[in-house]
Amino acid sequence: MTKDLDKDRAAFLMADFSQGFIKFMGLEALAVRPGEFDSQLLVTDDHRQQDGFVHAGAISTMADHTAGYSAFSLAGEGMQILTIEFKINFLAPAAGDQLLCRARVIREGKRVMVTESKVYDINKGIEKQVTQALLTMAVVPREKLKQPQ
Amino acid sequence: MTKDLDKDRAAFLMADFSQGFIKFMGLEALAVRPGEFDSQLLVTDDHRQQDGFVHAGAISTMADHTAGYSAFSLAGEGMQILTIEFKINFLAPAAGDQLLCRARVIREGKRVMVTESKVYDINKGIEKQVTQALLTMAVVPREKLKQPQ
Amino acid sequence: MTKDLDKDRAAFLMADFSQGFIKFMGLEALAVRPGEFDSQLLVTDDHRQQDGFVHAGAISTMADHTAGYSAFSLAGEGMQILTIEFKINFLAPAAGDQLLCRARVIREGKRVMVTESKVYDINKGIEKQVTQALLTMAVVPREKLKQPQ
Amino acid sequence: MTKDLDKDRAAFLMADFSQGFIKFMGLEALAVRPGEFDSQLLVTDDHRQQDGFVHAGAISTMADHTAGYSAFSLAGEGMQILTIEFKINFLAPAAGDQLLCRARVIREGKRVMVTESKVYDINKGIEKQVTQALLTMAVVPREKLKQPQ
Repeated sequence: MTKDLDKDRAAFLMADFSQGFIKFMGLEALAVRPGEFDSQLLVTDDHRQQDGFVHAGAISTMADHTAGYSAFSLAGEGMQILTIEFKINFLAPAAGDQLLCRARVIREGKRVMVTESKVYDINKGIEKQVTQALLTMAVVPREKLKQPQ
Repeated sequence: MTKDLDKDRAAFLMADFSQGFIKFMGLEALAVRPGEFDSQLLVTDDHRQQDGFVHAGAISTMADHTAGYSAFSLAGEGMQILTIEFKINFLAPAAGDQLLCRARVIREGKRVMVTESKVYDINKGIEKQVTQALLTMAVVPREKLKQPQ
Repeated sequence: MTKDLDKDRAAFLMADFSQGFIKFMGLEALAVRPGEFDSQLLVTDDHRQQDGFVHAGAISTMADHTAGYSAFSLAGEGMQILTIEFKINFLAPAAGDQLLCRARVIREGKRVMVTESKVYDINKGIEKQVTQALLTMAVVPREKLKQPQ
Repeated sequence: MTKDLDKDRAAFLMADFSQGFIKFMGLEALAVRPGEFDSQLLVTDDHRQQDGFVHAGAISTMADHTAGYSAFSLAGEGMQILTIEFKINFLAPAAGDQLLCRARVIREGKRVMVTESKVYDINKGIEKQVTQALLTMAVVPREKLKQPQ
């Protein structure tokens, strides 16, 4: 994981990040390095739950998607990433108006990658870790993905 | 978990379900029974990921939130539910245009409840389980929830 | 998973179950069906922790190993099972002198199987579920397993 | 977590570590710091599985128990630790003859602590991480633990 990413590959990953549900909820790519990816969410009321905190589901989406792109940065030509499973612990409620996510690959494999993802709440300038997640990703040839019909 | 829910309590839970992020993404309450909750998502392109499947984050949100309300249905007066952690396995990609979630409490506790949540993809009338999740919830007195500021 | 298991295959799985750590700790095969496996542990003081309950590690071993053999019952010729990851919830302390484990495959795949495993405490004749686990298993050709050296 | 541990408390934790199942399987305390605990296992054939690797259950026990004592080091007078749940990823098979575990608290709470636990395989002098685990622990007053009968 010490090599730099090809510039074109890095630009592709950054642009590819926000589509569909991710674009809909406003999650943005921040930076990519080999085996690492950062993202941010500018929190609005649309991301909160009944008690005013950012919804666990929005945070989980951030943790999962960012981890997926950290794995994607190491995947070979023509390969896609699918989440096999993940587990996430909520360490503290997120009440601020900006979230950061830092994800990285902790096991690089040809078929299975294991990633770690941490979300931080930025509340009035103070950064605090609010979740920790451990995720297992499958590396799948694009042509093997059965297309939705 | 054999008693019926009070009608007013059931109506409250059904109405309380869709707020903030949940309302934003269009997740809807379907039914509540003591210790059990069902919800549905009518899938649009806003819920999909880059390969056309429903995003793992959208499904995780459904699994988590529905499980939270299954626990909420057993919580005492003045108590709120917070997710401590969850783990979710993705058994198959979801490609259909409707998802169902069925959640239930498998350990009822005063402070900690454990729940199980399954999401089903409805594709051209055929129901198929796409995820299984195991979730741990804290039961917290409302006044102890530090308010977002 | 409706077909019966070949008698020789079933006998092999039952005999293969207790080796190394599993034999050392006294975990025993009880029954095998396609995609399902049951085991038991006759609890001694060697399985308990500082407070007199069966140790979470002993129960986790039971949950994992039994799930592995439920997957093994569906694996093809020459394939082995390795645990990719698991998550286990402890629903109640186990204080009895016999534990039962029932495991089954919930996603049958050529390379990845997902299993569910429940452990029950038998205390003075009363059976009580003490754990629930969700486990991901890799199906690996035997020749690809790097041998310990 | 910057304060040193009281010497008597540290000695108590080190001595208390190996009882019942832990003593039976030969897991040993190595070191304790506030919110952190290290342990080791000298691997024998009794710890291996059918393919010659250390059994996932033995490693899970190590990950769980060591994490429990990292939490115990921060618990108040008269409090005990019970595992609510954990999730563990197996990054590589462990083939060596010594395992190290390093566990630490990542969320200190009065009732719930979250811990992280990593196991390393020492094979001919080379250390390699073989698992990563995320664990949730309950802090329970000793008198509330229902005694096994």
